[in-house]
Amino acid sequence: MRIEDLTRDEFSAAINLDPIIILPLGATEAHGPHLPLGTDSLQPEWVADQLAERIGALVAPPIRYGMHSSTRNMPGTIDLSFDTLYHLISDILESLVRNGAKRFLVLSGHAGGSHMTAIKEACRRTATAYDSRIMFLSDYDLAAELAPRRGVAPGDGHGGEVETSRIMHIRPDLVGDDRPEGEFISHGFMVLPDPECCFPQGFAGEPAKATAELGEELNWHVVKRLEELIMRDGL
Amino acid sequence: MRIEDLTRDEFSAAINLDPIIILPLGATEAHGPHLPLGTDSLQPEWVADQLAERIGALVAPPIRYGMHSSTRNMPGTIDLSFDTLYHLISDILESLVRNGAKRFLVLSGHAGGSHMTAIKEACRRTATAYDSRIMFLSDYDLAAELAPRRGVAPGDGHGGEVETSRIMHIRPDLVGDDRPEGEFISHGFMVLPDPECCFPQGFAGEPAKATAELGEELNWHVVKRLEELIMRDGL
Amino acid sequence: MRIEDLTRDEFSAAINLDPIIILPLGATEAHGPHLPLGTDSLQPEWVADQLAERIGALVAPPIRYGMHSSTRNMPGTIDLSFDTLYHLISDILESLVRNGAKRFLVLSGHAGGSHMTAIKEACRRTATAYDSRIMFLSDYDLAAELAPRRGVAPGDGHGGEVETSRIMHIRPDLVGDDRPEGEFISHGFMVLPDPECCFPQGFAGEPAKATAELGEELNWHVVKRLEELIMRDGL
Amino acid sequence: MRIEDLTRDEFSAAINLDPIIILPLGATEAHGPHLPLGTDSLQPEWVADQLAERIGALVAPPIRYGMHSSTRNMPGTIDLSFDTLYHLISDILESLVRNGAKRFLVLSGHAGGSHMTAIKEACRRTATAYDSRIMFLSDYDLAAELAPRRGVAPGDGHGGEVETSRIMHIRPDLVGDDRPEGEFISHGFMVLPDPECCFPQGFAGEPAKATAELGEELNWHVVKRLEELIMRDGL
Amino acid sequence: MRIEDLTRDEFSAAINLDPIIILPLGATEAHGPHLPLGTDSLQPEWVADQLAERIGALVAPPIRYGMHSSTRNMPGTIDLSFDTLYHLISDILESLVRNGAKRFLVLSGHAGGSHMTAIKEACRRTATAYDSRIMFLSDYDLAAELAPRRGVAPGDGHGGEVETSRIMHIRPDLVGDDRPEGEFISHGFMVLPDPECCFPQGFAGEPAKATAELGEELNWHVVKRLEELIMRDGL
Amino acid sequence: MRIEDLTRDEFSAAINLDPIIILPLGATEAHGPHLPLGTDSLQPEWVADQLAERIGALVAPPIRYGMHSSTRNMPGTIDLSFDTLYHLISDILESLVRNGAKRFLVLSGHAGGSHMTAIKEACRRTATAYDSRIMFLSDYDLAAELAPRRGVAPGDGHGGEVETSRIMHIRPDLVGDDRPEGEFISHGFMVLPDPECCFPQGFAGEPAKATAELGEELNWHVVKRLEELIMRDGL
Repeated sequence: MRIEDLTRDEFSAAINLDPIIILPLGATEAHGPHLPLGTDSLQPEWVADQLAERIGALVAPPIRYGMHSSTRNMPGTIDLSFDTLYHLISDILESLVRNGAKRFLVLSGHAGGSHMTAIKEACRRTATAYDSRIMFLSDYDLAAELAPRRGVAPGDGHGGEVETSRIMHIRPDLVGDDRPEGEFISHGFMVLPDPECCFPQGFAGEPAKATAELGEELNWHVVKRLEELIMRDGL
Repeated sequence: MRIEDLTRDEFSAAINLDPIIILPLGATEAHGPHLPLGTDSLQPEWVADQLAERIGALVAPPIRYGMHSSTRNMPGTIDLSFDTLYHLISDILESLVRNGAKRFLVLSGHAGGSHMTAIKEACRRTATAYDSRIMFLSDYDLAAELAPRRGVAPGDGHGGEVETSRIMHIRPDLVGDDRPEGEFISHGFMVLPDPECCFPQGFAGEPAKATAELGEELNWHVVKRLEELIMRDGL
Repeated sequence: MRIEDLTRDEFSAAINLDPIIILPLGATEAHGPHLPLGTDSLQPEWVADQLAERIGALVAPPIRYGMHSSTRNMPGTIDLSFDTLYHLISDILESLVRNGAKRFLVLSGHAGGSHMTAIKEACRRTATAYDSRIMFLSDYDLAAELAPRRGVAPGDGHGGEVETSRIMHIRPDLVGDDRPEGEFISHGFMVLPDPECCFPQGFAGEPAKATAELGEELNWHVVKRLEELIMRDGL
Repeated sequence: MRIEDLTRDEFSAAINLDPIIILPLGATEAHGPHLPLGTDSLQPEWVADQLAERIGALVAPPIRYGMHSSTRNMPGTIDLSFDTLYHLISDILESLVRNGAKRFLVLSGHAGGSHMTAIKEACRRTATAYDSRIMFLSDYDLAAELAPRRGVAPGDGHGGEVETSRIMHIRPDLVGDDRPEGEFISHGFMVLPDPECCFPQGFAGEPAKATAELGEELNWHVVKRLEELIMRDGL
Repeated sequence: MRIEDLTRDEFSAAINLDPIIILPLGATEAHGPHLPLGTDSLQPEWVADQLAERIGALVAPPIRYGMHSSTRNMPGTIDLSFDTLYHLISDILESLVRNGAKRFLVLSGHAGGSHMTAIKEACRRTATAYDSRIMFLSDYDLAAELAPRRGVAPGDGHGGEVETSRIMHIRPDLVGDDRPEGEFISHGFMVLPDPECCFPQGFAGEPAKATAELGEELNWHVVKRLEELIMRDGL
Repeated sequence: MRIEDLTRDEFSAAINLDPIIILPLGATEAHGPHLPLGTDSLQPEWVADQLAERIGALVAPPIRYGMHSSTRNMPGTIDLSFDTLYHLISDILESLVRNGAKRFLVLSGHAGGSHMTAIKEACRRTATAYDSRIMFLSDYDLAAELAPRRGVAPGDGHGGEVETSRIMHIRPDLVGDDRPEGEFISHGFMVLPDPECCFPQGFAGEPAKATAELGEELNWHVVKRLEELIMRDGL
């Protein structure tokens, strides 16, 4: 159930049941020539909707902007600063706490290091300042658990077979047919002013191998793993 | 055309045509017992999509959070601070400028005073720092032009006949049937710690008079007026 | 009574009577060829002094700097940023609260949108964080109530007949004789990098029609309306 | 000549002559039982007006708020934070630079350590970022040069014989007759949460010895020394 | 060569040779009952000194404070905020750039996620704003490469066999003899207000197995790997 | 006893005895051709270690970076901003307070005005927000008490006979033999963009007269005076 679809009174009634609030965090980011810029939004939003239905959670309005480094200079990437992202998530969580929410699943489609830290610090601030329980992760990490068992190559990553398969399941109309191989070129520990040189093709992996069937399996794997984690860790 | 649905290369091609970028800004805000919390998101997003189709603009991923005062303490309102909202819009506009965009229509569904100022200052910063043209307004103000000519009462406002009609056209399934009358109680120039007392029912106007037909007319009026303004002011 | 003229002990005695503290906020801003840069300071300071005498209020030291947009690039306008203005007013109000003050009338001579929002947000912060009552407005808005009834033209505004008349009453020596007509040219909803183009002459209205008599009437109208509002709204 | 008394065009003409801009900085601060809270405003403003007349300088609108430590908890002291004061002065200087001003005398009546640093850092920022020359000092330090030669006791300081004499010359009506002796009690290098304990009477020195004649001599000494310093250091 | 041991002129001569500047970043952090709080400072400082001698680099004055989460509430941990750490490293790098430095190795003994992001963002800002090359890593990660090949258990981590061995080599006098086993207890993706519960003993691994010989090998491994990386990545 | 040399449990035991925590603050700053850049670090660190031994205090990890104005543009000076320095000291003090510390001696080797204010404001914030006692000073000021009695010339200052003597006692190997005379050239109250012009030689005084014997006496004078002050002011 999307919070934005509820009236004031329906929201009040729902919040009284102490539901988990899922906050899906996307991005607008270049994902190679074959995937839409909203790839990182589509995945966690689909997962959030399915999971919410299964466990009776509420889904907060998604954010479709994040913080980017290696793709920052590629066409179509829209970038927030660390501070903006931190305060955006802090404000939303704090406002939901004022509304009576106590349990949160913050689910990010994008998994860049600084992006994750900005969100994690916002979660930490909320967990420390209020009596709230927060789980925070990227659904990408759960999908990547299953991938090797389904023959996905080790170097698969940003815009690769896993992400392409998942989008082929969610929005097949947005996936292009021209799907060459993409390579990640490590620059070790150098902090680069032009980090896009790490992705000469703009993505990493073999999207040509992607299928909607694999995507469906990966997407449902994420949903089920989240159910398990919520149960196991007592969110 | 939604930017998030384009691939990197489709976006590059589109931006080379110097399109207007429409950034729809919504909110998650209590709108009385009969309207969904996402009321202020639904309206500008509908308008943005229709307008984009007519004039060949690109629609950036919507933001569905804003800054609120009088409804801040009502259930379901999620509130950003002034600074967060300012930096959020600044970052997005600046990032789009880096991507080559030069013309922007920033369209806010919510029209609260401080909310509008935060966005306007972000627009001003971008217009001043870069060579870009920006039009910024609330679609509410354009809808309100037509309202009196269609018999809407003068006191109609937040969550009233205009907004209810517009949502009945866009998402009739989200509008409740219990639609009493709502009153705005002025407290003059007092700056209140509990400004929700200005809206005892949580909205202002006669939503019982709302119809999908009026909503359709209002929604299209907004689209057409925007077309005229863009032409007249040479955006 | 000006706070700055009291000794420590006189201030202590006065504050124990729970007086209203009037904080007059001016500006240093171009007002056409005929009016002094301190026009927006002179008006609220005169009003504050008269009102204080009538109701036994204390007048805090005036601020003569504000935030400007349309006149920002005209000679003589001195401009604070939004954040500076917000923190300045916040600090002063908070410091007065620590001193025991509980009731405030914040009176701004300048009425620009972002300027007013910066001050309003500072008032809101104080009203919310402490047990204090705050009324905030521009005296311009009260003067403008009476103007049409005295034959002032509808387009009268910044530096026009109303302001010129009021300064002719307060400081006639500072008003110039060359008073052509000034026009406001709307640019609709465009956010302009050069907003001074809205005021080709630097002001709007017919200052040639201004008289000290009208000014006197307007100035006293403001004082009396403030008395009524303070009574009505129970400041 | 006060900038606020000039019209836009008079200001333009004046600034073209490359005048020194004097910015008088006061305070609202407890000065014992005998002196007004505006003591630190009256002194630099008087000096600024006299000096401006002698050397053809422009006087910017005064600020009557500063940053305080040892008197912060005394009745009537109104306190800005370090950051607010820094940004206030920075904004004003930068705005004047944009207006064409190149030479500044920033003259503070209050001489507290952190207060002076906040202003000095704002001056330094302006001097470094723009091609401008800035002299910054407290007029108190110049008055204190002469004091020992006129028999003022070594421990004289805040609210003492020097300041009382100077106010007796400028605004004798604001000086009280009850003027006991005040003592400064050093707490060495301790950073105190209650630093007002350093001034049990709220001031330091023998204000009973103050005279308007001494005040007049001190005030003119400051004016003349400033003239010399401006000449000597080529402001 | 430590920068702090050079005179102004020796520094000038050295910087003209375009040396690598090594900035060693430590921490003051609880490391179980057997290791000193300065464990994370001792390691990168030793490495920096050895490496500097071998490649002719300059060592900047070390920082011995960092940002901590899981050990934050343990006795002896001293914690900087994200923003403080970011600005500290930014200021130092920028100041060194102004001094003519162009190549940096930023070497952190502590490897916590948010700590590393704060430093990385500071490095990124410098690399982007100036023409400088920066390598940034934790020496811990290099030591951990060798550890499994020397029989260190997979769960070894904070304060474990690797760190204990390294300190036994550098400062044996600071290592305690009571060295029980320590366990890391994962809480999955929960963001905890009391993250110290992840380290019931305050460290992870088998420090009883630590030896100075292993420490010496690990320490030199780090030095040599850094030499290789600097060569390979053309710092 | 250095905090960084203690284990977690040793630190816990020590803090329970309510010790004074000494925080030595140094700098990396040009001190003429004859003194090392770390001059301002060596002095307070030596003092802190001696004093700690005599009174049973704990020494926190030193900071070797500060804020500089007149030497900012000289080779080897590394500069923090006011805000960075303020937050750095605030964070460390607050973290130590959370650890149970209640008494602090903050001892700065560098004594520049803005540097001292940044640290003092951080101390003030801590003293006000928590129940802690803080003494803050520069050891330079104590050394300068004795200097005139030992024949040091009045103009001696930055990098002069006092500092050179002290370093000759602490680290004679770091003091150069070429020690001409240095002059301080006052620019009165001008706020200069190039303040290094005040020190044409980079220091002030007659370092040729410096001796290790004088340095030893000065260094011990500082230690003993601190003992007296701690006793007298009841730190």
